[in-house]
Amino acid sequence: MNNMNLLSENAFLSDPEYLDPIRPEYMSHEERYTNALRKACHMVGKFNNDEEIQQLVGQMEGMRSLMGSGVGVAITKDGNPLALHFIMFLPAIMGQGTVEQQAQWMSRAWSGEIIGTYAQTELGHGTFLRGLETTATYDPDTQEFILNSPTITSTKWWPGGLGKTVNYAVVMAQLYTQGQCHGIHPFVVQLRDEETHQSMPGVTIGEIGPRLGMNTNDNGFLRFDHYHIPRTHMLMKHSQVLEDGTYVKPASNKLAYGTMVFVRVAICFSSYRQLQRAVTIATRYSAVRHQSELAPGEPEPQILDYQTQQYKLLPQIATIFAIHFAAKDVWNTFNEVTGNIQDGNLVRLPELHAISCGLKALSSTDAASGVETCRLACGGHGYLASSNLPRIYTSTTAAITYEGENTVLWLQVARYLIKSYREASQGQPLGHSVSYLTMQAASTHNISVLSNADLVEAYKNAVSSMVSKTAARLQQHCDMGHPFEHAWNNCSVLLVRCAQAHTRYFTCERFVDAVEKAELSEGVRSILHRLCRLYLIYHISLNHGDFLRSGALTDFSISTLEEEMCNLLTALRPDAVSLVDSFDVHDRILDSTLGCWDGNVYQRMFDEAQKSPLNQTDVAEAYFKYLRPLMKANL
Amino acid sequence: MNNMNLLSENAFLSDPEYLDPIRPEYMSHEERYTNALRKACHMVGKFNNDEEIQQLVGQMEGMRSLMGSGVGVAITKDGNPLALHFIMFLPAIMGQGTVEQQAQWMSRAWSGEIIGTYAQTELGHGTFLRGLETTATYDPDTQEFILNSPTITSTKWWPGGLGKTVNYAVVMAQLYTQGQCHGIHPFVVQLRDEETHQSMPGVTIGEIGPRLGMNTNDNGFLRFDHYHIPRTHMLMKHSQVLEDGTYVKPASNKLAYGTMVFVRVAICFSSYRQLQRAVTIATRYSAVRHQSELAPGEPEPQILDYQTQQYKLLPQIATIFAIHFAAKDVWNTFNEVTGNIQDGNLVRLPELHAISCGLKALSSTDAASGVETCRLACGGHGYLASSNLPRIYTSTTAAITYEGENTVLWLQVARYLIKSYREASQGQPLGHSVSYLTMQAASTHNISVLSNADLVEAYKNAVSSMVSKTAARLQQHCDMGHPFEHAWNNCSVLLVRCAQAHTRYFTCERFVDAVEKAELSEGVRSILHRLCRLYLIYHISLNHGDFLRSGALTDFSISTLEEEMCNLLTALRPDAVSLVDSFDVHDRILDSTLGCWDGNVYQRMFDEAQKSPLNQTDVAEAYFKYLRPLMKANL
Repeated sequence: MNNMNLLSENAFLSDPEYLDPIRPEYMSHEERYTNALRKACHMVGKFNNDEEIQQLVGQMEGMRSLMGSGVGVAITKDGNPLALHFIMFLPAIMGQGTVEQQAQWMSRAWSGEIIGTYAQTELGHGTFLRGLETTATYDPDTQEFILNSPTITSTKWWPGGLGKTVNYAVVMAQLYTQGQCHGIHPFVVQLRDEETHQSMPGVTIGEIGPRLGMNTNDNGFLRFDHYHIPRTHMLMKHSQVLEDGTYVKPASNKLAYGTMVFVRVAICFSSYRQLQRAVTIATRYSAVRHQSELAPGEPEPQILDYQTQQYKLLPQIATIFAIHFAAKDVWNTFNEVTGNIQDGNLVRLPELHAISCGLKALSSTDAASGVETCRLACGGHGYLASSNLPRIYTSTTAAITYEGENTVLWLQVARYLIKSYREASQGQPLGHSVSYLTMQAASTHNISVLSNADLVEAYKNAVSSMVSKTAARLQQHCDMGHPFEHAWNNCSVLLVRCAQAHTRYFTCERFVDAVEKAELSEGVRSILHRLCRLYLIYHISLNHGDFLRSGALTDFSISTLEEEMCNLLTALRPDAVSLVDSFDVHDRILDSTLGCWDGNVYQRMFDEAQKSPLNQTDVAEAYFKYLRPLMKANL
Repeated sequence: MNNMNLLSENAFLSDPEYLDPIRPEYMSHEERYTNALRKACHMVGKFNNDEEIQQLVGQMEGMRSLMGSGVGVAITKDGNPLALHFIMFLPAIMGQGTVEQQAQWMSRAWSGEIIGTYAQTELGHGTFLRGLETTATYDPDTQEFILNSPTITSTKWWPGGLGKTVNYAVVMAQLYTQGQCHGIHPFVVQLRDEETHQSMPGVTIGEIGPRLGMNTNDNGFLRFDHYHIPRTHMLMKHSQVLEDGTYVKPASNKLAYGTMVFVRVAICFSSYRQLQRAVTIATRYSAVRHQSELAPGEPEPQILDYQTQQYKLLPQIATIFAIHFAAKDVWNTFNEVTGNIQDGNLVRLPELHAISCGLKALSSTDAASGVETCRLACGGHGYLASSNLPRIYTSTTAAITYEGENTVLWLQVARYLIKSYREASQGQPLGHSVSYLTMQAASTHNISVLSNADLVEAYKNAVSSMVSKTAARLQQHCDMGHPFEHAWNNCSVLLVRCAQAHTRYFTCERFVDAVEKAELSEGVRSILHRLCRLYLIYHISLNHGDFLRSGALTDFSISTLEEEMCNLLTALRPDAVSLVDSFDVHDRILDSTLGCWDGNVYQRMFDEAQKSPLNQTDVAEAYFKYLRPLMKANL
């Protein structure tokens, strides 16, 4: 499941330049940035100069995976200041620039002569793009755009690498020409002098300060004071501003969907990779740690023998597979649809948009809460930086907010669900992923042993009942005279629940499908089948009220399923360690005293603590300065 | 609700010594410790030398609140290296030392001549105290105890202040005398030379390295190599070792309950104070932040107008009151029971132990997830250190693990529930908090408007049904021939759910009682009533399956309650800001760019970012060192 094969992993990890003298958590904010920039520059330099490595990992794909999860996190650990250059700046020019514009910037950007980021979010606006305030006003006399930040809230805020690293950016701004606003458009903007790296006159840049995590991205702020750029610096593949100021609008405004879908699916993949790291650490630790007694007089068991511990960890392992299969399915559909976009067929885009929104929200939420569950499952030691679980959490949770805040995304999924439901009641055909909404699902009440297919039917039943009830309530609010949007707001807590339940059903069905269709040995298939079964039942058990209310399941079948869930935990217990071993995450990528494959937990924790700068002397400097005067005050 | 009145808050906060030159997140690990120690020493010195302040806040109580929540967090922010001296070391000597021992150490400790901590947890053992491995072996020839750490896992690990600050500790060790082990006992142990502060020969100490949060407590490790201490350094109020090595056991082994209950109730109080800070920040920010549009063409509303945002924040406000009232109730019961202990009446201790375990687990879990919900409700800005929500989360979540890991505590609550349930079926009387388990609760099915009392009945119904089903399943496992402890383990996921549901019911009932009995103006009562109602319905809605399965509520009444919940959010919206204002948390205690009372969010964020050390120069040092060579490599 890893991005890079072992050979190229080792090619990077064997380089001593990537070792930290001490864990970054010991360093100051500035030292952490400097240390990460050192490694990031070395990484890019090495990549650019080493054809063998380039061949091993492939150029563009290689840089991307170096910047993101996998071997990248083993190197820069808490964010790479050059990441957005490769992940956003280069792709933006590729995807939105004309051929001439690509020629102008791509090779310079690729060689590192210019380094850029992508500046969209502002202090006052994030997810709601139409609210962005930065303006780009065209002046036909000079054939320039004038970039301006009219208010404090229009300050660009957050872009990675913006603070101290980049000298260029793709800046999103409200385009004004001939007295009219045409909404946000992308502009390539030089921010720093290429010779001195000083910020350009009219440009104010800095970094925004420390964060919960991701502290070495030098996220920055940016303000423009009537800053002039050439007309040709607007990225003009889709829309153009002609020399005289005439605005030429894009062929379709749905084209932007493509990038968003791509980014959201990428987040699903990186989310489950984070969860892989956390559950590998916690499962291995749970096989090493002994605690209490199951019965008086018995030796202390491995904590993995406790059902409550199995219940914390095994569903996380199942979640990894569930997200993997569901995201892969959306990825395949995306590639089909992308084919269709180029042929001009956009009919499946809204459906794909909805499911990618839902899956991004589901996987980032599940991964963050799963990582935190793993951290807490390691007790106090999970709170130590040397376990690496804190850092895995602080970076995983960020995905709940970025690239579309999850609550906003859930409401977009809900909008698609309600729209589909209403269209269906008018006899219109439904997208594949929501076709169940109006089907009469089969009753499972008289079935004694519920198959996976039966459980998927139960999910469909439960969700379609939730959606139909919520649609009815929404209609009720409208009938009482509320405008639709206010009625929508008044139902939004329930709408979010519909969206979550729908996305869960989608993920369950993809998991079941994948297990059925995969070509596997019987042994592996039976383990995967158990994990799939655990996933289906776990989420029924957490939301059993929804299944009862819709009549999808009876009290009796839920009790039976809960009993089965407990049996599945017992049955999967012996395979837990092999399962996480099969993820094959390199010890350096785990970066954890608790999670190494050799299980030598306690010695490693002890050795790691010895490296603390405070432990290099027996008596701390601070003692002489502050403590001794206090302790000797009364003598 | 604050610990100290405004006058004494200001007496401390007005002192410029407590201002940080830059936020601690910018500093290195060592600088953060040094900075916190500076402020902690100044705080104690000031307190010891200022009779006016001593009178204002009271000596012992004052030091404790300075060390913990409230004004203390405004000063040392991320943990106080002297905290455990006041919170654990002094109380341990007071509570477990003889009068002579108190005379020997208390005044020296109070003046700061000796500074101590409490060393219990080891690398290999935390919650399971019997597993601790440090030994104290009595030698009658020299009349000394020999302290030893026989294994790497016996290394003391975690105690706050242990790393670099303290010179003494109360050490918990397995007592051996006359060839027999008598379990863990407390010993006063000198760790560092009083003159040089160097660690004593035979003692190895250091700090354990950085953590998710609480990074200025200098949590430490400690190993003994056959280290000798006088016999009289064992704290002998309850048990003694005589000169010849005879062991005298304590009058009751239930006495230890007292301290645990005290500490757990204290955690409830500090948990809801953390949640107060978070929800104050998030609510104020939600009234300042504008986003999107409710309806096309309308101006961007305050995000607090979105039902989904209200649903994130208002239940947190309700939770604060719920924990407050429930913890106060347990506190009052504790004081009654403590009276009884001194009279030798221990009959209510197990019940009190169970409910304090449950309430500690519930309040720390609710507070941590509530704080994180508040952080996420502030979008990207909640991820910034300057919002202070990251630090509030990282310190709040620690309470899930310390002083009894929550899963372990839930299982202790479950043990009490099952034991009570079984005793009741044998006709024995039940403790007050569990008496409902065998009562036939009234049916609510024909009631159209459910009162608070009806909802509490529904909770009782739901929980007692869960407990009886789980007890039956447990019996089933035993009947199949499993030993009780293994049957217990096989049911433990369900047992934890019973414990959680029981504690939730307890909290709901205390909230309802408190609102009914409180002497309040009608206006305040009606707001508090709404919050109480929201709390009751919110948790029914989250767990509606439990209420359906037991027949406690019908599908129809749950739908009605969900509609009411949405209406309550709307009704409480106008009071949200005044409610958090009424918590009256000082801006310095909030320490947040997003949460100040004046609402000047964006300017404050911008100004705060300017203070970053990286922003003191336009071009970072790191540019010249690493970036320039890369950017100029191809020229």
